[in-house]
Amino acid sequence: MKVNGVAYRTIWVNDDGWSVGIIDQTGQPHRFITTSLTTMEEAAHAIKAMIVRGAPLIGATGAYGLALAMRHDPSDAALARAYEVLVETRPTAINLRWALDRVRKALEPVVPKDRATAAYRLAAEICDEDVEVCSSIGNHGLGLIQAMHAEIGRSRPVNILTHCNAGWLACVDWGTALAPIYKAHDAGIPVHVWVDETRPRNQGASLTAWELASHGVPHTLIVDNAGGHLMQHGMVDFCIVGTDRTTRRGDVCNKIGTYLKALAAKDNGVPFYVALPSSTIDWTIADGVREIPIEERAESEVTVMSGKTAGGEIVSVRVAPDATRAANYGFDVTPARLVSGLITERGICPASEAGLVSLFPEHAL
Amino acid sequence: MKVNGVAYRTIWVNDDGWSVGIIDQTGQPHRFITTSLTTMEEAAHAIKAMIVRGAPLIGATGAYGLALAMRHDPSDAALARAYEVLVETRPTAINLRWALDRVRKALEPVVPKDRATAAYRLAAEICDEDVEVCSSIGNHGLGLIQAMHAEIGRSRPVNILTHCNAGWLACVDWGTALAPIYKAHDAGIPVHVWVDETRPRNQGASLTAWELASHGVPHTLIVDNAGGHLMQHGMVDFCIVGTDRTTRRGDVCNKIGTYLKALAAKDNGVPFYVALPSSTIDWTIADGVREIPIEERAESEVTVMSGKTAGGEIVSVRVAPDATRAANYGFDVTPARLVSGLITERGICPASEAGLVSLFPEHAL
Repeated sequence: MKVNGVAYRTIWVNDDGWSVGIIDQTGQPHRFITTSLTTMEEAAHAIKAMIVRGAPLIGATGAYGLALAMRHDPSDAALARAYEVLVETRPTAINLRWALDRVRKALEPVVPKDRATAAYRLAAEICDEDVEVCSSIGNHGLGLIQAMHAEIGRSRPVNILTHCNAGWLACVDWGTALAPIYKAHDAGIPVHVWVDETRPRNQGASLTAWELASHGVPHTLIVDNAGGHLMQHGMVDFCIVGTDRTTRRGDVCNKIGTYLKALAAKDNGVPFYVALPSSTIDWTIADGVREIPIEERAESEVTVMSGKTAGGEIVSVRVAPDATRAANYGFDVTPARLVSGLITERGICPASEAGLVSLFPEHAL
Repeated sequence: MKVNGVAYRTIWVNDDGWSVGIIDQTGQPHRFITTSLTTMEEAAHAIKAMIVRGAPLIGATGAYGLALAMRHDPSDAALARAYEVLVETRPTAINLRWALDRVRKALEPVVPKDRATAAYRLAAEICDEDVEVCSSIGNHGLGLIQAMHAEIGRSRPVNILTHCNAGWLACVDWGTALAPIYKAHDAGIPVHVWVDETRPRNQGASLTAWELASHGVPHTLIVDNAGGHLMQHGMVDFCIVGTDRTTRRGDVCNKIGTYLKALAAKDNGVPFYVALPSSTIDWTIADGVREIPIEERAESEVTVMSGKTAGGEIVSVRVAPDATRAANYGFDVTPARLVSGLITERGICPASEAGLVSLFPEHAL
């Protein structure tokens, strides 16, 4: 998507033909910084230090990490070591392991002298496939926005509420929940996005707001507490959020607070959609509330906040009393009964096992 | 309640017999500062600059402001001027106007030389009455906590979730929503409080957490997004919140985000109680969602946050991109259908017109 009028992906090969460009996402929302990865170790650091984040982008960065390693030393030993270093950067990231497995498996039968070229080609393929998936999600979701715009008589912008960041910064381009919004904006359909701040890590305020501002999409930042009031007063036409893990019956595990918005949407008759690449569907589980373990994260994410002073300096400040402890659950589960539909790369389906299997018949039991 | 083992009210007459002590609430949560008001102008400034906040406390401060004015000059002109200055500090604060009207009306027939003494006596009465009302709310709510403790087999602390600050810092002592919790804690019933951070002004993180920590009540700070997840997993026994305005049929207008917690409570069978002095009931309106106008506040409350640096300095930082605008709705309305009961100074009743009139028959139509 665009930054200051220039189209970007979140990861690319530089004009030198080998070094890997990324957006340093620790700079958002106050600074737009791009940087280059020139070694596997730099790629590993970028993942570990969350200079890049978002499942698809982490996978792509891992793949390019292997390519950088092969450029330096294409031996079997170097391949095995690079795999180990990269997979350890975020041990629970399914998508990272999937990308690394795919590249390693493809490289093993290749003679060492051809491995670097093959690895760059595979990494580029992984990126292009992700863009294709997100673009398809965007096209399917665009239909919903067009229909809503017609329903409200084209009299005003379509008001869409989103939570957290399921945008292009988490992917290679387009994003998941934000893809339909970018497609609508680019097609000239007026949209306005209510951006949930998304405490405690503020991904809405820092990443989603930045993305939308950079691409020129009208939006308004709100605290996570505000969405219910907006829905009670007809100020939200529908909600679109992403998901980290989706069960085979359509329960959705996403950033903490998603469930509260889904409840408010249900209570006010506001459609609540979830956008997802099918890679996030965990076909092995059904009941999300019971079966998905919820990660507890550092309490400092709740008690300490980072921002820009009037002087332009980035500082961290404590917002709670020193004596107060915090709990920090990273995700919650929205039961399928609260979800109006799932927007996938193959189309939109009801949030149910029958719905998902209708689009992904290869997963029928 | 206690601060470092010493019992405090939020406002008192100092040992000199005339100057008025207050807690400077701009210091919370990082500093405990008490200060003295020696003139009506200082009292007015304390209200205007939110050095004191919370409806009952603002009323009490206004009353003492009139007493300080009468000490200096008990003339009719001085009384009229002090009233005007004080009432203008927070023009929409119903409780402030009520307290000032009460004191002025009582002083007008009094000969000037006796006015100061009468004003101090009236201000003290207003404070004592507020403490009495809050204490009664606490006693009625205590019964609910005792019953819940018995219901869970006395096996663990009772887990109570609260939103915003309806504690003693907003009143003279005890608070409203927190009064039952203090009563239970003081009675030896183990309680644990989930404290909603309460964005954007963070009253939970800065005031409620501070109050509970100071009095020694076990509590855990959470982001506003977390409550639904906790309720899905049986980690909340019930919710108690305050209210700024309650309709005659029991709709509750309270800090933005209250409605989302009430929805989650309903979805998970968690009792949701609202504690209120009957002075917050607006008998003239019925449908809170339609009839209560919701104040929109400065967007800087959303985009700028204040806290303590590692070096101990209090600074403000911007958390959103410079190009992003924010909307800031201060309150939302929780429909009576989501409220399990109203805890008033006269007892607990269903959130309905019949329920309220059963306790306050003088308001039957």
